[in-house]
Amino acid sequence: MESGTPGGSGPAEPGPRLRGLGGALQAQAQAEGGCCAPAVAAVLPAGGSGERMGVPTPKQFCPILERPLISYTLQALERVRWIKDIVVAVTGGNMEAMKGIIQRYQHKRISLVEAGVTRHRSIFNGLKALAESQPNSRLSRPEVVIIHDAVRPFVEEDVLLKVVTAAKEHGAAGAIRPLVSTVISPSSDGCLDHSLDRTKHRASEMPQAFLFDVIYEAYQQCSDYDLEFGTECLQLALKYCHVKAKLVEGSPDLWKVTYKRDLYAAESIIKERISQQMCVVMDTKEDEEHVGRCLEEMLKNELNHVKVMSGRDLQQVILEQCYNFVCVNVMTSDFEKTQKLLNVLDESNLSILYPVVVISVHFLDNKSIPFGRKMEDLMQIKELAREVKKRNILLCGLLIYYPQDEQKLQESLRQGATIIATLIKERDSGLIGQLLIA
Amino acid sequence: MESGTPGGSGPAEPGPRLRGLGGALQAQAQAEGGCCAPAVAAVLPAGGSGERMGVPTPKQFCPILERPLISYTLQALERVRWIKDIVVAVTGGNMEAMKGIIQRYQHKRISLVEAGVTRHRSIFNGLKALAESQPNSRLSRPEVVIIHDAVRPFVEEDVLLKVVTAAKEHGAAGAIRPLVSTVISPSSDGCLDHSLDRTKHRASEMPQAFLFDVIYEAYQQCSDYDLEFGTECLQLALKYCHVKAKLVEGSPDLWKVTYKRDLYAAESIIKERISQQMCVVMDTKEDEEHVGRCLEEMLKNELNHVKVMSGRDLQQVILEQCYNFVCVNVMTSDFEKTQKLLNVLDESNLSILYPVVVISVHFLDNKSIPFGRKMEDLMQIKELAREVKKRNILLCGLLIYYPQDEQKLQESLRQGATIIATLIKERDSGLIGQLLIA
Repeated sequence: MESGTPGGSGPAEPGPRLRGLGGALQAQAQAEGGCCAPAVAAVLPAGGSGERMGVPTPKQFCPILERPLISYTLQALERVRWIKDIVVAVTGGNMEAMKGIIQRYQHKRISLVEAGVTRHRSIFNGLKALAESQPNSRLSRPEVVIIHDAVRPFVEEDVLLKVVTAAKEHGAAGAIRPLVSTVISPSSDGCLDHSLDRTKHRASEMPQAFLFDVIYEAYQQCSDYDLEFGTECLQLALKYCHVKAKLVEGSPDLWKVTYKRDLYAAESIIKERISQQMCVVMDTKEDEEHVGRCLEEMLKNELNHVKVMSGRDLQQVILEQCYNFVCVNVMTSDFEKTQKLLNVLDESNLSILYPVVVISVHFLDNKSIPFGRKMEDLMQIKELAREVKKRNILLCGLLIYYPQDEQKLQESLRQGATIIATLIKERDSGLIGQLLIA
Repeated sequence: MESGTPGGSGPAEPGPRLRGLGGALQAQAQAEGGCCAPAVAAVLPAGGSGERMGVPTPKQFCPILERPLISYTLQALERVRWIKDIVVAVTGGNMEAMKGIIQRYQHKRISLVEAGVTRHRSIFNGLKALAESQPNSRLSRPEVVIIHDAVRPFVEEDVLLKVVTAAKEHGAAGAIRPLVSTVISPSSDGCLDHSLDRTKHRASEMPQAFLFDVIYEAYQQCSDYDLEFGTECLQLALKYCHVKAKLVEGSPDLWKVTYKRDLYAAESIIKERISQQMCVVMDTKEDEEHVGRCLEEMLKNELNHVKVMSGRDLQQVILEQCYNFVCVNVMTSDFEKTQKLLNVLDESNLSILYPVVVISVHFLDNKSIPFGRKMEDLMQIKELAREVKKRNILLCGLLIYYPQDEQKLQESLRQGATIIATLIKERDSGLIGQLLIA
């Protein structure tokens, strides 16, 4: 067994977050007469070959915004502070790659075990690592164990809490979803034998949770046939320990990345989540204020949620995981302010998990400087963009025409806002270093 | 009942196509002793409210690249020439919108009927329209009827042929897929009763096909309860006509757009399909030839399949549904060649179904003209782009630096190819009229 970097909690997920649920679990445990929350670990089988995807890379290692899918799932689990250990089962061939992922994306509380040839054998290996205290191992036998899939990256803390709480009471619990399609049973000649009543059946999804002793006992007792061909842990707990799992209604987000189209969907969801807020960095000088505020208003029409901060609040913005920055340089043609922002971003670890978009906004005032000269001055953005791309920062320039006529100015700003929104939503590295014009 | 524009076959789908399957159906019918292929119609229930999507628009009307999802499904059905009629059931409230869609996207062979309050009632209304010859109706009773969903846009001719052929032999047939999740049966207290053996069950998908007399009989006989709560046409054929449907293995593409993530996936799939080929328009003068060929080579590295045509072959390119054009103006700074291409595109109907990307490529030779001047000359692309956007053409400019040094030229061209590939893949109207620089 191999250990990832231990200690601390990993970088959190952006978007709506559930706070204090660890506290809720603890409070609930106390209300039930227990002295403290149950010790919880998670096992993540990740030994699959991804044959359904039709691509050579196993699906859990397919990149989304250049980061492997499994890293998103680890991120979702490790932001839940009351999960003490996360045991990932990977094949020997992927062990080094997995260690690289843990290091690069700074995942915490991860231990690696060798995957088995089937999903059940991988889970069993994970459980064994938790059960048997090894020398040099930081793992200890938990009270409750969560089993999740490496290819379900959008699991939220609330459903994890629900299955853990239900497992503590019932011995086992699993997330379910309504069936999307009718399920039928074919006869041996490939014809319809009967179709099942959709209202009486559910799709069994992940996460599931078990009292550790229950599921470990079930795996120790179960037959080779179960380990080879079984698919459902809940069924093993029922068959070998007579534990009837509690079923917990899950959200649509729990779906499993199975086909190529699911990768597309996952990428779009992730892009959408990290585009929900942006930070407009500008000085509060009077002349800047007017255009800055106008631009801000138009950006609000383009994107759901726009936070505007001055440069001094940057540390707070970064702490809140904002991945989009618009840096307004109203009357200066150089990149002083943008460079300052880039330095701050560089010192933070913000761009480790997601590409950060920075748009350097400049204004073209025809009175002071001709268009061609201004363009030539601003072309140095190409070099700058190439440099910061190495640190996962996507830099673009935006030159906004600044006419005296107020109505025309509004029109320029509106175009600028559209371009900014497009760059943030697409988050495509093919356009870095471009100087766009509104 | 309302009729859409009759006659002719609609615009075909790009990407890999199956030719001559209508002929195959006819040949098969002859081999079986029939004199001709069966008359085939399709019924498309489209009265759903889309509540699972979590958006106010019913999912079949949600836009993908600004075109409603149902139009893609109609396109997929109407390119199959042996489907004589397509009957769509929509609610009264959506009737006018649906007529607008048929007109705008030039769909053919479509008839509209009023949807019922449930899916089964909508299908029944469609079948009635086919069964009962109305005055002024162009519909006639088919031998075989296909039932499909408005929200499964990627149905291919081969699976339609398979279900129709099987229905002719067995009376009924439907597409199936392996289960992605284990199916379980809950007990009344919300716990696991048992889980089903995944190997013995399948998901029932669409399309399905029936001998018309079989399914019409089944609907006439079935109870109000079936019409209200039933979900499965195959089950009705079994229950009321004792016809055991043949099950046909379908491709993963048959999936149903159900959740918001499915819309994201559908958009990505469509974008990918129409980005598979591009046409590079250039003169064959000697000086152009060198850079043109280099650019072409680099584009081949960026995109799967690059077709290069000179301006004379344009009509052929348009016929083959290429939606991406790169117009190379090597030493001219004006838009003469690009304008010519835009005129040709305008005369064709190519951009009715998909946004067409046109990238006007120019070269900056520092010897002849300074950068600033060149940029100013080229800025008129903004006006041109705004004009052609009205016709669903997305125009961008690309200025490629043209140094004497061959190695530097190669580097410029490589950057240009990356930008072109990005614009084609993203197909985002937020960047139209921009002049990008490589």
